[in-house]
Amino acid sequence: MLTSLALACAAPTLGWAEAHTFEMNIEDTKITLVGKQDFHTFAFNGQVPGPLIHVKEGDEVTVNVNNLTTLPHTIHWHGLLQRGTWQMDGVPDVTQPAIKPGDTFTYTFTAEPSGTMWYHCHVNVNEHVTMRGMWGPFIIDPKEPTPIEKEVTKDFILMLSDWASAWAFKPGYGGVPGDVFDFFTINGKAYPDSQPLRVSRGDVVRLRLIGAGDLAHAIHIHGHVFEVAFKDGRPLPAPYEADTIVVHPGERYDLILRADNPGRWMVHDHVDTHTLNGDKPMGGMMTVIEYTEISAKDDFYAWKDKQFAPDFYYEESLKKPHGMYDAAVFQGQAIE
Amino acid sequence: MLTSLALACAAPTLGWAEAHTFEMNIEDTKITLVGKQDFHTFAFNGQVPGPLIHVKEGDEVTVNVNNLTTLPHTIHWHGLLQRGTWQMDGVPDVTQPAIKPGDTFTYTFTAEPSGTMWYHCHVNVNEHVTMRGMWGPFIIDPKEPTPIEKEVTKDFILMLSDWASAWAFKPGYGGVPGDVFDFFTINGKAYPDSQPLRVSRGDVVRLRLIGAGDLAHAIHIHGHVFEVAFKDGRPLPAPYEADTIVVHPGERYDLILRADNPGRWMVHDHVDTHTLNGDKPMGGMMTVIEYTEISAKDDFYAWKDKQFAPDFYYEESLKKPHGMYDAAVFQGQAIE
Amino acid sequence: MLTSLALACAAPTLGWAEAHTFEMNIEDTKITLVGKQDFHTFAFNGQVPGPLIHVKEGDEVTVNVNNLTTLPHTIHWHGLLQRGTWQMDGVPDVTQPAIKPGDTFTYTFTAEPSGTMWYHCHVNVNEHVTMRGMWGPFIIDPKEPTPIEKEVTKDFILMLSDWASAWAFKPGYGGVPGDVFDFFTINGKAYPDSQPLRVSRGDVVRLRLIGAGDLAHAIHIHGHVFEVAFKDGRPLPAPYEADTIVVHPGERYDLILRADNPGRWMVHDHVDTHTLNGDKPMGGMMTVIEYTEISAKDDFYAWKDKQFAPDFYYEESLKKPHGMYDAAVFQGQAIE
Repeated sequence: MLTSLALACAAPTLGWAEAHTFEMNIEDTKITLVGKQDFHTFAFNGQVPGPLIHVKEGDEVTVNVNNLTTLPHTIHWHGLLQRGTWQMDGVPDVTQPAIKPGDTFTYTFTAEPSGTMWYHCHVNVNEHVTMRGMWGPFIIDPKEPTPIEKEVTKDFILMLSDWASAWAFKPGYGGVPGDVFDFFTINGKAYPDSQPLRVSRGDVVRLRLIGAGDLAHAIHIHGHVFEVAFKDGRPLPAPYEADTIVVHPGERYDLILRADNPGRWMVHDHVDTHTLNGDKPMGGMMTVIEYTEISAKDDFYAWKDKQFAPDFYYEESLKKPHGMYDAAVFQGQAIE
Repeated sequence: MLTSLALACAAPTLGWAEAHTFEMNIEDTKITLVGKQDFHTFAFNGQVPGPLIHVKEGDEVTVNVNNLTTLPHTIHWHGLLQRGTWQMDGVPDVTQPAIKPGDTFTYTFTAEPSGTMWYHCHVNVNEHVTMRGMWGPFIIDPKEPTPIEKEVTKDFILMLSDWASAWAFKPGYGGVPGDVFDFFTINGKAYPDSQPLRVSRGDVVRLRLIGAGDLAHAIHIHGHVFEVAFKDGRPLPAPYEADTIVVHPGERYDLILRADNPGRWMVHDHVDTHTLNGDKPMGGMMTVIEYTEISAKDDFYAWKDKQFAPDFYYEESLKKPHGMYDAAVFQGQAIE
Repeated sequence: MLTSLALACAAPTLGWAEAHTFEMNIEDTKITLVGKQDFHTFAFNGQVPGPLIHVKEGDEVTVNVNNLTTLPHTIHWHGLLQRGTWQMDGVPDVTQPAIKPGDTFTYTFTAEPSGTMWYHCHVNVNEHVTMRGMWGPFIIDPKEPTPIEKEVTKDFILMLSDWASAWAFKPGYGGVPGDVFDFFTINGKAYPDSQPLRVSRGDVVRLRLIGAGDLAHAIHIHGHVFEVAFKDGRPLPAPYEADTIVVHPGERYDLILRADNPGRWMVHDHVDTHTLNGDKPMGGMMTVIEYTEISAKDDFYAWKDKQFAPDFYYEESLKKPHGMYDAAVFQGQAIE
């Protein structure tokens, strides 16, 4: 037994690592941000955000990418080390030629380090990432979770982004100096077409915030003090308490919120001019934490008749075995 | 005596908690940012910032709000937990219907947690918070101060905000995508109409910065390294030294600055384009730390004939017993 | 020997402090940001960034400044304490009258505290700092380096800034509300005219990021997790890991990156709209970490024929004895 233990220590990943192969199409897709505001995107598997990739630290990942659009693309795996596989990093003209329309490229790499990561196109990022929806979450579970991670009962992903409606139907253009961003979304939807975060008293909630757009967002949560536990997927050595966390493009913050205060609580960008849809106030980057202990039926409640769409924060998919998961709630409409 | 001590421990707040009742009117008010630049605000008790609310952790607070304007409003108590009182959180269509013009609403809640908090309207925040001056400071003293808090000899509040002059006299409008912010204020005034921060050698200065506007501000203090001690009212587990602190909307940072370097020192936003009034340089979000040991009479000093207005940082009101305090220095002019 | 040691302890700086005298001219200078985009600057010694000042904590520094332009200027030594020398802080109308065209001013002060500091003009900062290139690095080595500092094998300085081309040739104007920033540079150059960061496996790399412009930049480094070790020149009590660090104007962050992953890795602002030159994508605030172990000759590599310019990050000058160093790579063209 001592011998086998020594062996396990010498090559600790061998027993755990899985191999995953995923198919990813990039498709011209129309999505709706809110109300009648549609947008032409180059969507991963026809949805914005793209499918959830959820694996374990050390897993071997293969992604076959098919570019079905008329413009060149790549996929960069933001936050992954690509140790020994720099050619898989997905940067056009630096680590590979861009994937031409109609072409396929296969990315193969090890999933490390653990944490909240994401993927996105790296061609003309000012347009493709900023306003063509070319991003999705990439969650890598650690081999050894931290104590706080083991306590988590609800796990939510929130990808923040910004859109300039002037370019909505001009694919191949946009994301240039002087642009006016006028729509602001969580997982591709603006309030009131976003979805509530449903929790119950006693839940230990993990909120994985990902800055996928072009602007900074000062996310404020009412009724709670949360712990800022992870930055860019890495555990902070000195987690701190806050009620407002600023997420800039490229950054990730994982917050731990102890659901100990039943009520109905706003979650919103405190950059106030990000809470409009176009020039219409009370929209944009806002949602509500709903406790199951509290009826949602107050007459004055804007969402009292809200149709609930599960998995909007990938909270259902995250419970499934490791793999890649599309989500019907994010599916757009193919553009021929 | 042992018995009474045991009792006090069992219910520690009973002996300390006070009950406060405050009256708050929301009034159409003209304020002057700097020079001739006036602005139509919906001011709490006719002033910007609104009155200081200063209580102790655990106190019971009642605020009777009278909406004397022609638009709907609420008050949200930013940072307060509202434990068990979520209907007092002040969010229209989520925790209450907005307070209609002419109507009154009474907020009742417990003051917790301790720290630098603030209050603001939560209706059409893009306009009402961003550029109608609907905000004020809410300071909750802790039951058990941290060691550094006990050392403080000067306590200053600085509320940072941004204004787009195009909307100055169009109440009910503004704060929309594409707005050009062209005035930048500390406690509602831009340099040179702001006020110096007066200290003496040996002072332990607490600067409570509150992001009340729409932009990020990189506040730089000359001649000192300060300690970043509190974020959003909560003590940081690992306070750090800096000379520039970035405050985004909704955030609060409490800085501890040891006044050990007599001189005349700039304090300003290092976002350089926030140091103008309109298109006139050397204005905006700037002030000066003046040591009493140094004469202010140098010929070249821009503020050598400055008329000093006490309580501009609520430093006098903060010394008074707990309660709510208007400040004459912030009073505007009623708009009929 | 015991006696001399005791003496050294009693007056520890005496034996170490050096006195330096530097000459600094401010000159109308044309620099090229990228391609054909030139800019009229008021350059320190005719270069942007200005010369490197590199001294040791406690050194006595004298700088004779000659204003050869037609506008008033000063120099502020950002981050230096100016203990007992507040009149040397370089703020017009607060610590001194501005230096008139043709005039000279001598600054004398002690270099403290240690760390990554910088200098810049303090007259009309919205124009002079934001878009006339009036800034340079000021590095103060500590008397007692931290353990991580002793490990460093490569030391790079990156000054980040932003430019609105509309004002390129209108000196005396610009940096006003509503400006559209459309060029984004590291040490005054935009991609592809910036330079690679060359490292070798095993290097311990220090990246000194300085926010010298007007916007926030979310610097993301591929293929590595770095340690955020210093903020504003001061060591952080709880250094943390990240792959993206946000630098606002006035701030400095020193990152420690262990070069353990040979490859070709992007370093770029993740504010995607800062990766253009004007409206042309794939430019702006980007560079590449090149490992010497990897050939740069891939056909697809945008920089395969790049002409390498040493000292672009002041990495060569930083190895020289303490002093002030111009760098040929930053030299502009005199404007008569």
